[in-house]
Parts: sequence; structure tokens; C-alpha cells
Amino acid sequence: MQISHIEHIGIAVTSLDDAIPFYEEMLGFKCFAIEEVPDQKVRTAFFQVGQTKLELLEATSEDSAIAKFIEKNGGRGGVQHIAFAVEDGVAHALDEIQEHGGRVIDKEPRKGAEGLNIAFMHPKTTGGTLVELCEDPNK
Amino acid sequence: MQISHIEHIGIAVTSLDDAIPFYEEMLGFKCFAIEEVPDQKVRTAFFQVGQTKLELLEATSEDSAIAKFIEKNGGRGGVQHIAFAVEDGVAHALDEIQEHGGRVIDKEPRKGAEGLNIAFMHPKTTGGTLVELCEDPNK
Repeated sequence: MQISHIEHIGIAVTSLDDAIPFYEEMLGFKCFAIEEVPDQKVRTAFFQVGQTKLELLEATSEDSAIAKFIEKNGGRGGVQHIAFAVEDGVAHALDEIQEHGGRVIDKEPRKGAEGLNIAFMHPKTTGGTLVELCEDPNK
Repeated sequence: MQISHIEHIGIAVTSLDDAIPFYEEMLGFKCFAIEEVPDQKVRTAFFQVGQTKLELLEATSEDSAIAKFIEKNGGRGGVQHIAFAVEDGVAHALDEIQEHGGRVIDKEPRKGAEGLNIAFMHPKTTGGTLVELCEDPNK
């Protein structure tokens, strides 16, 4: 697996409306997109910080993974996942992980925010951190 | 505050010896330094991923912030903090945050791993995420 950089960091927030002003006014970033991802039951806001995007995630349903993360985290937000940009394909990466005895949540790539092909590894394999692999199909 | 990039992501792990092989063998990164930071009661391992470092953190004492994070997280590791590289000085950034009504954990910069000047913002201000600001005093 060839990873070039951290594509984004997924940060759970209780409210985009409350969180965006912190990232814009206090840290000086600029929100460049707000997108709903019905498949994952989230609304997302994106900021570019050097090579990496921050993806703020607000749950749109109580059974969204983000709502569950916040509930487990005592009602507070926090970093929910790290997404690595894979240069030699997510499908190939998933095969490699499983050949090495690793567990994955998605056995095949699926569509995520911004049209990326994505897949999640299982936290049992990563030591607890939720790790996403992604590739831009247009590159 | 001028932030150029994500300097590192701090990931709590229960054991560096267990975690390093995952990052090296499954994700293909190379650990380039292992360092003990007695002040923070942690042992750290570093990996470079594009512009950003991953800093794995293992507690060296039960009263370390990392031990408490893992305990709260059901015995599992996970992302504990994000560190942003500040171009116009951490001291200046701390002043700005407090002028905007934000709370900080460190009122003045202190020394962190790799000789950086660092300070943490208060999670109450950031929406739950532990945010570190840092600068390289040699740049």
C-alpha cells in the first residue's frame, strides 16, 4: 500500500453552526464546502489546512455513527477518523490488509464525500483508531 | 493566527510495541524516532506522512493524560489531539485566542517533543477536540 499523505481528518461536532465559527474566526481557516452524505447520515463542512482537509461531521440522524461517537464521548465532539490517501488503489489496499490478517469494515470501496472511493479499516486492527483509506477516481 | 499545516496527529496507543508493526507493516510507514517526554509521562514514536507526522503516544504512568484517555475510551487507543503549525508564534496565538474569549490550557508556550514550543487549547473552546499549537523555534 502506497500512502502519499493524510487526505482528511474527520472531526465529530454536535453542531456545524457552532463549530464553523471556531475554525474560521479563531483558527483562521475558510470553510470551502458543506455537503450532506445521506449514506452516512451526516452533514459535513470542509476546510483545507496545507495538504490535509478537516472534515467536520454533524449527525443528521440518531443512528448515525457520528451521533453514537458523540454519545460515547460524553456528549462532546472529537476526532472520529483519519483518512489516508492511497496512491495504488483502495481495492488493492483492502486485499493487502486482509492478506496480512487485518480486518476491514468495507470489503470493497464505496463512494464517500467529494466523490472519493473510500473504505474503512476495523478498529480492532488499528489499535482503536478509525482509519479510512481513500482515492480520487479522477486522478 | 497563521496556521500553515497540520504538524502532527497525536494517537494514544496501549503499547508502542504492538502499534508500531501495524503502522510499518500494514500502512507502509517508517518509524523515524522514539522519544520519552517525562514532562507529559509518555513515550512517543514518530512517522512522517506527507507534511504531517503521526505521533503515537504510550503512557509511562497511570496518571498520564494518555492513560486517562485510554481508560475513558473503553481501554482502546484513538486520536487524542491535533497539532497545528503556527507561523506567527504560539505566544501570539494564545493572546489572540484569549482576546476572542477562548480558553487555553497553557497560558504560555512550553517545550514539547522534538524541541517544539507548544501550547494546548481548552476542549471547551474547540468543541471537544484537543488542539495543540506548535512552532519550531529554529525556523
